[in-house]
Amino acid sequence: MNLGSKYLLGCFLIAALSATISVSHAESLPLVEKKEFVTTNFKTFGGQVIPEVRVGWESYGELNDDKSNVILVTHFFSGNSHAAGRYTEEDPQPGYWDAIIGPGKAIDTNRFFVLSVDTLVNQEPHNPRVITTGPASINPETGRRYGLDFPVVTIRDFVNVQKLLLDELGIERIHAVIGASMGSLQALDWAAAYPERVERMISVIGMGAADPWTIATLQLWANPILNDPNWNGGDYYDAEPPRAGVEQALGMVTLTAMHPLIVNQLYGASTPREAAPLENIRNDFLVIEQLQAAARMRATYADANHILYLVRANQLFMAGYQDTLREGLANVQARSLFIPSSNDLLLQPYLARDAHETLIDLGKESTYLELAGPWGHLDGVFGITEQAEAISRFLRDELP
Amino acid sequence: MNLGSKYLLGCFLIAALSATISVSHAESLPLVEKKEFVTTNFKTFGGQVIPEVRVGWESYGELNDDKSNVILVTHFFSGNSHAAGRYTEEDPQPGYWDAIIGPGKAIDTNRFFVLSVDTLVNQEPHNPRVITTGPASINPETGRRYGLDFPVVTIRDFVNVQKLLLDELGIERIHAVIGASMGSLQALDWAAAYPERVERMISVIGMGAADPWTIATLQLWANPILNDPNWNGGDYYDAEPPRAGVEQALGMVTLTAMHPLIVNQLYGASTPREAAPLENIRNDFLVIEQLQAAARMRATYADANHILYLVRANQLFMAGYQDTLREGLANVQARSLFIPSSNDLLLQPYLARDAHETLIDLGKESTYLELAGPWGHLDGVFGITEQAEAISRFLRDELP
Repeated sequence: MNLGSKYLLGCFLIAALSATISVSHAESLPLVEKKEFVTTNFKTFGGQVIPEVRVGWESYGELNDDKSNVILVTHFFSGNSHAAGRYTEEDPQPGYWDAIIGPGKAIDTNRFFVLSVDTLVNQEPHNPRVITTGPASINPETGRRYGLDFPVVTIRDFVNVQKLLLDELGIERIHAVIGASMGSLQALDWAAAYPERVERMISVIGMGAADPWTIATLQLWANPILNDPNWNGGDYYDAEPPRAGVEQALGMVTLTAMHPLIVNQLYGASTPREAAPLENIRNDFLVIEQLQAAARMRATYADANHILYLVRANQLFMAGYQDTLREGLANVQARSLFIPSSNDLLLQPYLARDAHETLIDLGKESTYLELAGPWGHLDGVFGITEQAEAISRFLRDELP
Repeated sequence: MNLGSKYLLGCFLIAALSATISVSHAESLPLVEKKEFVTTNFKTFGGQVIPEVRVGWESYGELNDDKSNVILVTHFFSGNSHAAGRYTEEDPQPGYWDAIIGPGKAIDTNRFFVLSVDTLVNQEPHNPRVITTGPASINPETGRRYGLDFPVVTIRDFVNVQKLLLDELGIERIHAVIGASMGSLQALDWAAAYPERVERMISVIGMGAADPWTIATLQLWANPILNDPNWNGGDYYDAEPPRAGVEQALGMVTLTAMHPLIVNQLYGASTPREAAPLENIRNDFLVIEQLQAAARMRATYADANHILYLVRANQLFMAGYQDTLREGLANVQARSLFIPSSNDLLLQPYLARDAHETLIDLGKESTYLELAGPWGHLDGVFGITEQAEAISRFLRDELP
């Protein structure tokens, strides 16, 4: 079973597909560096206090004199603030939305100062290019890692950390906030929580509030970790970590974020007529082995408890955090643009449509468009150029 | 947290919804009894031999003199041969397709002899009303339970056991074979494997072949069992069984078989603004607790290894078991009817459409209709009356 070459084929296909969506351009961003923001005695939405919060952040473009050209990019579940550009000349991959962020691109860094911040409880606390605070961080009061003593945090807390950074930078208003998936939750909550500071909001593959189906489906990502005996009630920092649980959780994140169209294309070498799984119940299909191999790589920098806290933050989401979404969006001033993916099986388009229609019903300005690629949820990342022109026009107030 | 009453509410809603789909009728089926069929030295599709196979079966209506009025009903993953009727007068629930099988119903037992057979490796070997042979059965050669020594079995093996029963009953040809979900796989494979014996084939919420996405998604049902330390490589029959893994697996089966429309209706009491999950990472949302409670009940009669073997049988499915689906369907003589569910997120309509179009392309007779209910995959069971008239007309050759 030549797994290596099959896996490489999968990688090649992904690279080839990515290549088709990258935009050629003469100019590119200068090399990017991760900066650190520190704040103390951070009060969470749930009413607890985190003595010290450290998060990483990146920026592209230049802040203008009156600080009126800011675009905040909020990141998705498995992502971080590396939205565009490269860290070194040799860096093989740019940030995840490099296709739409840069000089002359849809989010034009010749014009805008683009800012992005690592969230609290980021999935990858062990990634040397991520700075985050969460259960894997040292609790200064005990000198030990928090584990499950870390307070539950919400999307609102991610927003509030970003707000403190903007305050420190002297940024009062933002031209736009834009994010994909979990990033879209932050974007919409920004508009709900700080209406006077947000001029435009773009929600890509997003939702206005978690519903029971979404809460239950997100729980599937947590279960493999909770099932791993090494998880040990969240207390594993001095022992063997629950690596198998993390790998399976991330494999599930990947699978639920993709539509059959792309899975069947990427893993087309796997068929129901494979010999090995018929021969012995212990043998796996190629597609299972390939997904596991990919998940193993994705798990390198991840922390099990951080994944649990991220799942929880998403499950707890209702923009504005009132009793209903309608109440939560009542004070929004931003013009909104929703771009779900037609083939999204995870955050299905009805979720974005509900939020859009609630805003319209409240008399707000909102536009609804769809991405229509083979990736499903991941079209919000890999297929975003399909709506690059709409995003660019929306930022210039030229979208009807 | 009044879980009991919430759970009862969920049950009530399910009962209420079921009530709306049952058809009133003066006549009903006589009480049903489970019969047993035994065959020896059963050779599997994978080339192994099972010394003794025992399966249960049920029938409704009377076999006519020339044995030309047979309709075979093939059951779904979590089901068994109890397709219609009640075992006792007090029986609270009839068989799963009672709404369309009975006197004067779409599958009219005044006219047809309806037959259904428990599959090999049935999910519920511990159900007193299921007779099946699988890993939980005693291997007559060792006097111990097979465990993972049981050979991998396929949908073709389920078909072949049914064929041996029909042979014993002297039934040469069947008027129609019909099944939902895993039952549809058996129905289509019947038409492919024994073309001269099958006059009509009805595939409800089905597919022609598993594709990589479906193989990977079905694997999610197996993982919680494989992760449970009590599973112990399949060898748990003399120890504590992997009950938690089975419960989580069945919870996942339920969730992936439902569309958000119905989940949000049944579990609408759960919201992202619940206090408990914000307060402590260890607390669950109501919808999670309710789904777990339902899964716990569903797990009563289930066996972990049987679930793994069922998952495998579905993953290995390609009707006709040739190199391609087209080759597999080349000899089909039956008229076919495909009825996927528009909102099915598990066996999505494209799978049934592919099989239908392959048949059309091969010059066969085939009709394609969709169910459009809120249940998604489960509309093939709970919403089937929507297409009862079409099924009835198809069985009379009156469907265009």
